[in-house]
Amino acid sequence: MTIIRFAEEARLSGAVAHAGLLHLAGQVADDASLDAEGQTADILTQIDALLAAAGTDKSRLLSVTIVLADIGDAAAMNRAWDRWLDPANKPARMTIQAALVDPAWRVEITGIAAIPPPVSAPPDAGMNDLA
Amino acid sequence: MTIIRFAEEARLSGAVAHAGLLHLAGQVADDASLDAEGQTADILTQIDALLAAAGTDKSRLLSVTIVLADIGDAAAMNRAWDRWLDPANKPARMTIQAALVDPAWRVEITGIAAIPPPVSAPPDAGMNDLA
Amino acid sequence: MTIIRFAEEARLSGAVAHAGLLHLAGQVADDASLDAEGQTADILTQIDALLAAAGTDKSRLLSVTIVLADIGDAAAMNRAWDRWLDPANKPARMTIQAALVDPAWRVEITGIAAIPPPVSAPPDAGMNDLA
Repeated sequence: MTIIRFAEEARLSGAVAHAGLLHLAGQVADDASLDAEGQTADILTQIDALLAAAGTDKSRLLSVTIVLADIGDAAAMNRAWDRWLDPANKPARMTIQAALVDPAWRVEITGIAAIPPPVSAPPDAGMNDLA
Repeated sequence: MTIIRFAEEARLSGAVAHAGLLHLAGQVADDASLDAEGQTADILTQIDALLAAAGTDKSRLLSVTIVLADIGDAAAMNRAWDRWLDPANKPARMTIQAALVDPAWRVEITGIAAIPPPVSAPPDAGMNDLA
Repeated sequence: MTIIRFAEEARLSGAVAHAGLLHLAGQVADDASLDAEGQTADILTQIDALLAAAGTDKSRLLSVTIVLADIGDAAAMNRAWDRWLDPANKPARMTIQAALVDPAWRVEITGIAAIPPPVSAPPDAGMNDLA
């Protein structure tokens, strides 16, 4: 099946679509001067954009892994998460603490989302009704 | 394709099924007073229940990530793992050390399992034989 | 759907194929005396072999997670990564620091790859042209 890559950088793609799944790279804040809550909000906005580019949205997120440089930031991260979350469509989630490549990064988030199939032309039943 | 969520909590679903895959959230022990071996056994029992709720079982686990708050607990975790593992159907696995949200949690486990397709009614060949 | 396991060890499979996806276990260096760059190159060679065993290759890697025992080894890891990477087919990637089960391991890498469907016999259009 076709593989489609989004937001390519030198060493990785920001997201890769294949067979109805979108695999996200670890997303970090564009503005690393923000605190953990701000970085989380920044990242979730970027995830929304990647999901949209692939024809899907946060209601179809299947699983998310959140990595905090300091697990003490869990409450701050959750404030941004709670504002963003679609409460009718909650993904599976895991949160752990790990040092990240850039020490200014407080949060990194990855995940897998479903991509809905393209909308087909509607079946031509009405025409048959006229036959 | 349809997305089905299991064991929903305020911020996440305990597992999410889509297109023949079950994506588990990070599972932690219900009884966080247990040691690492006990917490692992507790978690694996919960995973069995989530797999059963989604119509699958541990023989169809594809990959597992085990996070230990202290990597020194690897031997203790493995004692519970070895008792639980279906040796004919071993998943891919990765084990790392990371601090977890609640310091009482010694172990967190996530993974992806295959869900078998629903059993269809058998083809009606016998009826044709009578025609 | 069928589940096929590769490189089975006592507690896990080195990779598990199902429904067009190959789920890798965390891969570590066969020669743990190497530095982070050497261990990364060693691991990537092993990943190539697992992908080949499953009928795929690095051009179909969808996502990769790299765990470094010391995040200060990121530059060394990236030197091996850059030599190995197929620049036309970059996977999604996340890199974090976490202690690993064996303290000699500097790097552990896991990921998910697409497996192309088996090549079918070509459609027999030429024969119809003769009819």
